Amino acid sequence: MTFHSPLIRRAIPVLVAGILLAPPSAAQTDPLPSWNDGANKQAIIAFVEAVTEEGGPDYVAPGDRIATFDNDGTLWPEHPIYTQLAFAIDRLKAMAPEHPEWQNTEPFKFAIENDMEALAKGGEKGFMEIIAATHAGMSTADFEKIVTDWYKTARHPRFDRAYTDLAYQPMLDLMDYLRANEFKTFIVSGGGIEFMRPMTEAVYGIPTEQVVGSSIKTKFEMVDGKPMLMRLPEVAFVDNEGGKPVGINAHIGKLPIAAFGNTDGDIQMLEWTAAGDGKRLMMLVFHDDADREYAYGPANGEPETHFGAFTQALMDQATRSGWNVISMKNDWATIFPPMK
Amino acid sequence: MTFHSPLIRRAIPVLVAGILLAPPSAAQTDPLPSWNDGANKQAIIAFVEAVTEEGGPDYVAPGDRIATFDNDGTLWPEHPIYTQLAFAIDRLKAMAPEHPEWQNTEPFKFAIENDMEALAKGGEKGFMEIIAATHAGMSTADFEKIVTDWYKTARHPRFDRAYTDLAYQPMLDLMDYLRANEFKTFIVSGGGIEFMRPMTEAVYGIPTEQVVGSSIKTKFEMVDGKPMLMRLPEVAFVDNEGGKPVGINAHIGKLPIAAFGNTDGDIQMLEWTAAGDGKRLMMLVFHDDADREYAYGPANGEPETHFGAFTQALMDQATRSGWNVISMKNDWATIFPPMK
Repeated sequence: MTFHSPLIRRAIPVLVAGILLAPPSAAQTDPLPSWNDGANKQAIIAFVEAVTEEGGPDYVAPGDRIATFDNDGTLWPEHPIYTQLAFAIDRLKAMAPEHPEWQNTEPFKFAIENDMEALAKGGEKGFMEIIAATHAGMSTADFEKIVTDWYKTARHPRFDRAYTDLAYQPMLDLMDYLRANEFKTFIVSGGGIEFMRPMTEAVYGIPTEQVVGSSIKTKFEMVDGKPMLMRLPEVAFVDNEGGKPVGINAHIGKLPIAAFGNTDGDIQMLEWTAAGDGKRLMMLVFHDDADREYAYGPANGEPETHFGAFTQALMDQATRSGWNVISMKNDWATIFPPMK
Repeated sequence: MTFHSPLIRRAIPVLVAGILLAPPSAAQTDPLPSWNDGANKQAIIAFVEAVTEEGGPDYVAPGDRIATFDNDGTLWPEHPIYTQLAFAIDRLKAMAPEHPEWQNTEPFKFAIENDMEALAKGGEKGFMEIIAATHAGMSTADFEKIVTDWYKTARHPRFDRAYTDLAYQPMLDLMDYLRANEFKTFIVSGGGIEFMRPMTEAVYGIPTEQVVGSSIKTKFEMVDGKPMLMRLPEVAFVDNEGGKPVGINAHIGKLPIAAFGNTDGDIQMLEWTAAGDGKRLMMLVFHDDADREYAYGPANGEPETHFGAFTQALMDQATRSGWNVISMKNDWATIFPPMK
């Protein structure tokens, strides 16, 4: 057998090299290098192998391999306060010179004085007033620029790193592993959809169209002949608790086969995921690592927290339902990506 | 040169066959076989080649190659009535035995008597009453089954084919061509999101998560220990006119670079698409082919229609804005896919 075509002669060494240099098979490479060996890592790998085994009893077609992730406390920290609240407070302070009345008005004065305890006591109403003051009244394009600029300069108070450098490395590995197995990964978070989108592609590899979150209303307007979406101080959707299945249905239109959360606000997302036929994976991140990150919440023997509630009832429901609880302390070999 | 590895020996004939049987290059194959040669076909091809030319001045990264399509009248017929209205009327008739009062109540009696003119005169209010009666009061899963079953049996009154066999072949070719060039294709329709989703993957190759539409509210409930989303008789979102940019922003989170519509309800989507920097493609399907499909609307010299308005003002705006108007009669070599 001889080959005269130059194209084929060029192709053969490439083919040979391809075979010689092929990486070891997936079974030999650790797909989750930042996870310690244990039941949770095994559960993830067993799940992925089962649903991707063609002809196997648990096979799921790629188009139906939907995985949803809560954001705050699941993909990045939510302590000492939610990242979005840190943003809102920074915005309030930047805007304060134009609003001298805020010095004497709740909840604004608490934010300006860094009194997180008083701020948190104001609950949802106070938080919504701060959102309205800082997140509305501009175009979506202007808001995107404000958020993008903030991500570039803001630092986490304890870790002294950009918030966007604090995604949990094990969850990044997990999302990479799922996507390598033709999963589509979605964020389904109580956080603001427009607050997350400027960073999700760069930080998590998740494009804007795969982000589900809470939102305020927007309105199409022509301003000086230029079309704009103006952000209104009115809630459109709260993507938490029972809102998570609603948001999943509205944006995705099919049931996830895997869902990852970390608080009571994620219960309905996990129940909704579990409701489908076939193999499912439901997991909860448990913050029990005060040394490397945080340990908080009643299920941890700690007092209640305003930011991320993992109640004893949730721990009981996880046990009862066969949901995997991830111990940050025991399951994760590393927490954050290496410093650049 | 000899090869001893069985793997390589097996690979070579495959390689040779691959080269011998390789299709002609894209430049030689017609990417839009159901389109007649002309300015519109050329505009599409020139646009795709420009935005995909790496290093070229108009290059757009694959992740930003977003194309949005209206559905009724853009991807399939909207005459003699919207497909979703045909579904609603069929549902009303099926439910009528349990609702004897409908025989004497507007708008239900008009629907049951097939009086489309009277029904259309009732406008949005009447239509919403019919939607509430036929689209709400069941779970999302039950509604999906009802719609899926209807698509299997319903026939278009003129063409006597399933509605799902009446997607416009030129638009199917166009979507295939865009996706082959790493575009992500989305439906952005005034129609009900849950009415479209059961067929979009099979008919258009568009997965549920890339469908944007109008919606009613849903509520998460546990029914006999099983989680459900119940459909409520309350509008959540109207994805038409200024709602289209809102829906695009909510679901996609970035500007389309190409948008396709066919009525005044699509103006804002096209304006929103045109507002971005860089090369853009805005096109409108014009129904001027009474022989093979329909010719309707004022811009066609026909009276106003209740289903799909292409006004003279829209025609003027298209001319002024450089939006391409597709003549079904002249631009499309075929209208519907071949009979199976």
